[in-house]
Amino acid sequence: MKSRKINELLGEKAWKDRKTVVFLSDFGTADGAVSAMHGVANGVSNMLRLEDLTHDVPQFNIWEASYRLVQALPYWAGGTVFVCVVDPGVGSDRKSIVALTESAHLIVTPDNGTLTHVADRIGLLEVRTIDVAVHRLEGSQNSHTFFGRDVYAYTGARLAAGTLEFEEVGSPLAKLVKLRIERARMEGASLVGSIDILDSRYGSLWTNIHSDFLGKLGVGYGAELEVIISKDGRIVYGYHLPLCKAFTEVEKGRPLIYVNSLFNLALALNQGSFAATYGIGTGEGWKISFSVL
Amino acid sequence: MKSRKINELLGEKAWKDRKTVVFLSDFGTADGAVSAMHGVANGVSNMLRLEDLTHDVPQFNIWEASYRLVQALPYWAGGTVFVCVVDPGVGSDRKSIVALTESAHLIVTPDNGTLTHVADRIGLLEVRTIDVAVHRLEGSQNSHTFFGRDVYAYTGARLAAGTLEFEEVGSPLAKLVKLRIERARMEGASLVGSIDILDSRYGSLWTNIHSDFLGKLGVGYGAELEVIISKDGRIVYGYHLPLCKAFTEVEKGRPLIYVNSLFNLALALNQGSFAATYGIGTGEGWKISFSVL
Amino acid sequence: MKSRKINELLGEKAWKDRKTVVFLSDFGTADGAVSAMHGVANGVSNMLRLEDLTHDVPQFNIWEASYRLVQALPYWAGGTVFVCVVDPGVGSDRKSIVALTESAHLIVTPDNGTLTHVADRIGLLEVRTIDVAVHRLEGSQNSHTFFGRDVYAYTGARLAAGTLEFEEVGSPLAKLVKLRIERARMEGASLVGSIDILDSRYGSLWTNIHSDFLGKLGVGYGAELEVIISKDGRIVYGYHLPLCKAFTEVEKGRPLIYVNSLFNLALALNQGSFAATYGIGTGEGWKISFSVL
Repeated sequence: MKSRKINELLGEKAWKDRKTVVFLSDFGTADGAVSAMHGVANGVSNMLRLEDLTHDVPQFNIWEASYRLVQALPYWAGGTVFVCVVDPGVGSDRKSIVALTESAHLIVTPDNGTLTHVADRIGLLEVRTIDVAVHRLEGSQNSHTFFGRDVYAYTGARLAAGTLEFEEVGSPLAKLVKLRIERARMEGASLVGSIDILDSRYGSLWTNIHSDFLGKLGVGYGAELEVIISKDGRIVYGYHLPLCKAFTEVEKGRPLIYVNSLFNLALALNQGSFAATYGIGTGEGWKISFSVL
Repeated sequence: MKSRKINELLGEKAWKDRKTVVFLSDFGTADGAVSAMHGVANGVSNMLRLEDLTHDVPQFNIWEASYRLVQALPYWAGGTVFVCVVDPGVGSDRKSIVALTESAHLIVTPDNGTLTHVADRIGLLEVRTIDVAVHRLEGSQNSHTFFGRDVYAYTGARLAAGTLEFEEVGSPLAKLVKLRIERARMEGASLVGSIDILDSRYGSLWTNIHSDFLGKLGVGYGAELEVIISKDGRIVYGYHLPLCKAFTEVEKGRPLIYVNSLFNLALALNQGSFAATYGIGTGEGWKISFSVL
Repeated sequence: MKSRKINELLGEKAWKDRKTVVFLSDFGTADGAVSAMHGVANGVSNMLRLEDLTHDVPQFNIWEASYRLVQALPYWAGGTVFVCVVDPGVGSDRKSIVALTESAHLIVTPDNGTLTHVADRIGLLEVRTIDVAVHRLEGSQNSHTFFGRDVYAYTGARLAAGTLEFEEVGSPLAKLVKLRIERARMEGASLVGSIDILDSRYGSLWTNIHSDFLGKLGVGYGAELEVIISKDGRIVYGYHLPLCKAFTEVEKGRPLIYVNSLFNLALALNQGSFAATYGIGTGEGWKISFSVL
């Protein structure tokens, strides 16, 4: 880590710490692609910690990649470098970029919307375009399809190892590509927002509405709220649900509202899948509201 | 590692070794939950080795989590800390505990039965309740649902890094929650026991009957034994099978008895799935016997 | 790393670097088998880097294991040790071997064909048979079924840690077991070869025909070529396709020829699965040709 900006954020500590590269993609782990990325990063410095956020993002799903980043990034030390490769435009003229967040993390990724949630919730200090003619694995100039390995893993590892400064990757980006998200807000006696993600294993439904709004609404644990979920204006789900501290406060198979590990409002079935049971999806067009009865 | 007890078990070596945290859960790896746990542990000490046993335990399946622990734990160095999070009672009043095994491993887990197999086969020296008001990630006090990250990963990493002593986590636990397992035993000319697990990839069926019993029964490789499998008293499978050193001693698709990598009796089809072919399950209620003809 | 041969290849650097063991198998990651292998390797030296290429090779599929090795191995530093366990002959008299490649990598594996692609494309300097009575985890002598953990992980870790020399593992192997592959070649105005692999996530189809052949054929990007795919002599697919730099040069769902990340010719649908759409497979018997129109 030799970036001036990162040093200002982290202080001298940034120079001493062993650094981490965290990989995120839609490649799956059945072939050798992820291992090749790890190998390239290890080749830059064999002292880096190499980690995987997930490689099971649904193919080309930029929304989910963006969300997975904001979900895990805050739990990694400042100076950690994320390499995020969900790239339906591979080979097109989309830019390759590195973002420096206000939390002093770096994210190496194509400029296609994968930074949307991090930009909104954590904030970006600066984004630079990677000069891909210069910053790529030696001997990879003739390959046109595996930027994840040849450019992103290589550049991310060099940034983490301190052999490349953030300011050296290329010139500042004029305008970042972002997805459209409905902001969380209070409307009268209701909280309104969007559905961030379906918890893939338990089928819970996570909103972007922070639990701080509950205080503004004047409700606490034990209260009942009216929950309405709509898709493109059509109501898909409407019901009165309790706000619980624990899943076990309702019977097995019954729905509840809870505050998830990111301190946002969420819906679940105790030992069941809310999303599958009621056919709820995620992304642009979905809207959710919680209203005082 | 600063625990007096662990030092007694491992000697001075315990102070010098680089330590490992091994994670086990039913979270899957499709979202950011496992990465957040790794991030928290890395934040405690960036020199820890961070490993995953598996995160594909079937949801809320405490029996399988318990078995996976006893399967892998003996192959990790003394002083390794396991963080095991399969927790259907999340948010309920189940306790959070740390167990010290006779093999000098530590296991951080909810008190819900996940220590059953380790307690039976390896032995526990001491179990302590985690004081979760004290031992949790800074700033996590308002979250009620992700103990795996905020308490278990954080506490496990501090134990591995030596910034928290085992004796400091909380007071001794009065009585451990355990699952009911039918003990392996000899009854006349038969060996009787339970089915530990179905080998998920190959469909083999692993019993809890150690191969040492074969000597007591007076049989060796090449012998034929009568195998009876029952579920809640009803016979599901009965056949005469050979005891083989190698799967290839029988033709492709044919069943055999063998000694598995844990030195227990097991059943397999050569290049096929015994469990799927004969509809065999695992857990409480299943019973298996091997009898001399 | 104390091998004379490897030192000749890598120089003094080989002595100083932190070494890596990369694991590859058909075990899946749902049970404790992979973790047990990692634990054994960590027990040999807790400073080794432990990595996984993939454990999702289809069960007993030696062709795919062989291909995954050649796909990822070149991106790992010289001196890296691969432990490759896809072993339908477990318990039979197939030999256990260690191969030293021309690229100064070591591969520990059963002698059943898993080295085919590496031998063809990278080259093997020497192959030795492991004396499995000597080189195995202490206490594992009575187990007959888990060579991956007791012999391969243990031996691979000792080679990486420098506590075992390559020359000490056992005597040179007389003749390596290899799969039959149709070599890539030019026939008149056509390029002929075999189908290496189906890209598991995107459904692309990768051939063994290097892009250098395009120059010999006198064609470049933008050209159209006739593509014929046959299985055991029967034509399965025939069409005229463009040679593209980027998937986005054709419309969504349309097929194209491209040069993959290994610099070989490949077929894809833009944002679709070529293999699934046209029913194409991989392995012995499949043949593909690209002809000038």
